[in-house]
Amino acid sequence: MKLVIAIVHDEDAYEVIDNLNDKGFQVTKLATTGGFLKAGNTTLMIGVEKEKVEDVLEIIRNVCKTRKTVISAPSPMMGTTGVYVPSPMEITIGGATVFVLDVDRFEKV
Amino acid sequence: MKLVIAIVHDEDAYEVIDNLNDKGFQVTKLATTGGFLKAGNTTLMIGVEKEKVEDVLEIIRNVCKTRKTVISAPSPMMGTTGVYVPSPMEITIGGATVFVLDVDRFEKV
Amino acid sequence: MKLVIAIVHDEDAYEVIDNLNDKGFQVTKLATTGGFLKAGNTTLMIGVEKEKVEDVLEIIRNVCKTRKTVISAPSPMMGTTGVYVPSPMEITIGGATVFVLDVDRFEKV
Ligand code: NI
Ligand code: NI
Ligand code: NI
Repeated sequence: MKLVIAIVHDEDAYEVIDNLNDKGFQVTKLATTGGFLKAGNTTLMIGVEKEKVEDVLEIIRNVCKTRKTVISAPSPMMGTTGVYVPSPMEITIGGATVFVLDVDRFEKV
Repeated sequence: MKLVIAIVHDEDAYEVIDNLNDKGFQVTKLATTGGFLKAGNTTLMIGVEKEKVEDVLEIIRNVCKTRKTVISAPSPMMGTTGVYVPSPMEITIGGATVFVLDVDRFEKV
Repeated sequence: MKLVIAIVHDEDAYEVIDNLNDKGFQVTKLATTGGFLKAGNTTLMIGVEKEKVEDVLEIIRNVCKTRKTVISAPSPMMGTTGVYVPSPMEITIGGATVFVLDVDRFEKV
């Protein structure tokens, strides 16, 4: 038995929990407030048989992988009409930190 | 030294912490929001000497064991007066998931 | 790789996270509600290379060490003017509980 502790970004939490549940993995979601400048993280705990750790990691990787997205960012330039023109900006989102711990003993009461 | 991580139902949390404290075990209670469809769980962390793990587990089992209870559930049938008649319904409550982890090093500052 | 789980008092949390970040350690802060009579604790998780565990512990010790402080406590005696006179009282604050766990596997997604 292993305990997977995954720290994921809030925006990925719903999908990763949903995908894990769909594959039969029980997930406990801890309310994480994040370190300073790191708000927006969610910590998940998943107890899993040794043979299935890779399946859990694969789901986390698929959902949480670092990827680029384009957002409309405020532009320092104004259009000729004086209307504020947002310029698209590419940012990196996602990412997760995963610890797998050995479980000495596991019990369902 | 071992670290016991117990995920218990909210309705059992007060009593299990109280019983653990009575026996001299320190408990840290994490705010758990639960996975989806699993709201209402509380995660407890208890650092404990190896020889006392069984005592901790025994307390958790006693308080949190799955048991049946009877609640008044809405009935699909109405009484002749048209008044809503709740019918008693047996449901299962309780249960806990417990992980015992090895502690490499323990320190009280 | 090790996972350091530190339970510190709320009043020390900001400084210990700040000091850990300054030294390049990533900290995940869990919202801890504390056991009963133990409200005011914060749980921190820090993933760290084996060789740097002592550095992390040193920072936690420096910030969180038990120390005495003087507060103005309500006094049972009133001054002659009838004005409430607080008398200084020495109390002990700080302290932390630290568990270091072995990490079987670590992954940054
Ligand atoms: Ni991130
Ligand atoms: Ni349950
Ligand atoms: Ni304390």
